[in-house]
Amino acid sequence: MSDKPDQANAEKLVAGMVSRDGFSAWLGIEIVEVRPGACTVRLKVRRDMLNGFGMCHGGIPYSIADSALAFASNTHGTVTVSIENTISYPAPVSEGDILTAVAAEESAGNRIAFYRVTVTNQADVTVGLFRGTVYRTKKILEPAQ
Amino acid sequence: MSDKPDQANAEKLVAGMVSRDGFSAWLGIEIVEVRPGACTVRLKVRRDMLNGFGMCHGGIPYSIADSALAFASNTHGTVTVSIENTISYPAPVSEGDILTAVAAEESAGNRIAFYRVTVTNQADVTVGLFRGTVYRTKKILEPAQ
Amino acid sequence: MSDKPDQANAEKLVAGMVSRDGFSAWLGIEIVEVRPGACTVRLKVRRDMLNGFGMCHGGIPYSIADSALAFASNTHGTVTVSIENTISYPAPVSEGDILTAVAAEESAGNRIAFYRVTVTNQADVTVGLFRGTVYRTKKILEPAQ
Amino acid sequence: MSDKPDQANAEKLVAGMVSRDGFSAWLGIEIVEVRPGACTVRLKVRRDMLNGFGMCHGGIPYSIADSALAFASNTHGTVTVSIENTISYPAPVSEGDILTAVAAEESAGNRIAFYRVTVTNQADVTVGLFRGTVYRTKKILEPAQ
Repeated sequence: MSDKPDQANAEKLVAGMVSRDGFSAWLGIEIVEVRPGACTVRLKVRRDMLNGFGMCHGGIPYSIADSALAFASNTHGTVTVSIENTISYPAPVSEGDILTAVAAEESAGNRIAFYRVTVTNQADVTVGLFRGTVYRTKKILEPAQ
Repeated sequence: MSDKPDQANAEKLVAGMVSRDGFSAWLGIEIVEVRPGACTVRLKVRRDMLNGFGMCHGGIPYSIADSALAFASNTHGTVTVSIENTISYPAPVSEGDILTAVAAEESAGNRIAFYRVTVTNQADVTVGLFRGTVYRTKKILEPAQ
Repeated sequence: MSDKPDQANAEKLVAGMVSRDGFSAWLGIEIVEVRPGACTVRLKVRRDMLNGFGMCHGGIPYSIADSALAFASNTHGTVTVSIENTISYPAPVSEGDILTAVAAEESAGNRIAFYRVTVTNQADVTVGLFRGTVYRTKKILEPAQ
Repeated sequence: MSDKPDQANAEKLVAGMVSRDGFSAWLGIEIVEVRPGACTVRLKVRRDMLNGFGMCHGGIPYSIADSALAFASNTHGTVTVSIENTISYPAPVSEGDILTAVAAEESAGNRIAFYRVTVTNQADVTVGLFRGTVYRTKKILEPAQ
């Protein structure tokens, strides 16, 4: 017996979260892969995601990483929320770029867990190095109806 | 003589950035106040900013803080970009909440400067504690045409 | 009735922690002030705290800030531990400098609280900007015997 | 032609830094391995490294990680300094534990580079997840005399 849901359950939980997530829908986030404790997502940078310099706004790489973190960290079946996240920007992002965010658990305790999310562009250049610290509540996460 | 642009220049530079910033426009960000090295902005949380739990997506408080940081740190007249940001989430944010982000310089060197951005809701509850580290290039920032 | 211990209790708890804290003793940390949720400490930078460049090792401003955080966050009477800390270095530190770290609560929830610690030198120049995220256990903190 | 010093030069530069680093000497840090852009170091946790709870002070895993970062990031031959570091504490550290810190470059630009340092104990449990952001000056780093 394990407290980790199996692959099918992880997929069902993430599908439920995605179906209710309006901001991820606006971002155009697609799920590439889900595994227990991990998730890969993708989006294309549009003109309405640019900042005052004509480059991608820093909130976009952050938000795709934060969505990947939320999906990855909620695959274990209990509601899990972000406490604190950090992002570094090694390279700029332009309109039309395809961003891929890969979230994986680095270390997990009873209540607190640490995730790493790497954001790359279509040329496999790292454009975001994200670290997320989450709090695992005891509340059961309901899958999609 | 000072290397800091005056108040009128700071306002003109931020107005120029805002007029070209598509993502801040989508977020509905309004400028509340600009001073050299500081900026206060505001937005209202809409339904399309919510996540899979029906709460405000973590990318929204981050993005308003990042916009406030970009505006505040570019008031000095040279193009300034984020290296790394951290955000903590002391309290959740709901649809309809009014978020105010206050960005201020904590410490500034020749090339690197550190900013603090506090995000509060309409009840003055702190919902985001953000710290930004920026790199000041030597490129002159052009105000709006 | 309040869940915050009074001033006398905060002082007693910190005195107990300090008396058992070998590394803070090695650092030469003195307590300047204690209040519930806050603490100010001080140390002098010695030759054996320098790094390979002849400047103060980054671990010293971090460690004084981390001690200040531990003292401040444990004044509420339950054992509180660090989850994650961030430090920025706005200015270098030299042998003989007197560092003062001022820790204060920024925001506190039931289990998670956020602290800010500012480290300055004898000329009141900021040399460390530290943020700490702590987890409050339910275990009662025993004061000194 | 490459701007990276070769293996012999990296080893010579780190040996020079270590020989002048008083705090790393106090910590008992030994060099396990050096490569261009990477360094592994080790120390044993002593009684004078404990905090007021009788556990290892948070400044110790931070300091070994910060030393590993300094050594790794200075192997390229120019003086490189920390701007900002973050550490998470997934598990506690006790007296007698052997800590190993492995520092590696995650992404490097012209002036700014990002490093990851993982700190594990003798049972290979991760006790520190550290991320460092450094600034590369143009000053040549002199090896040991």
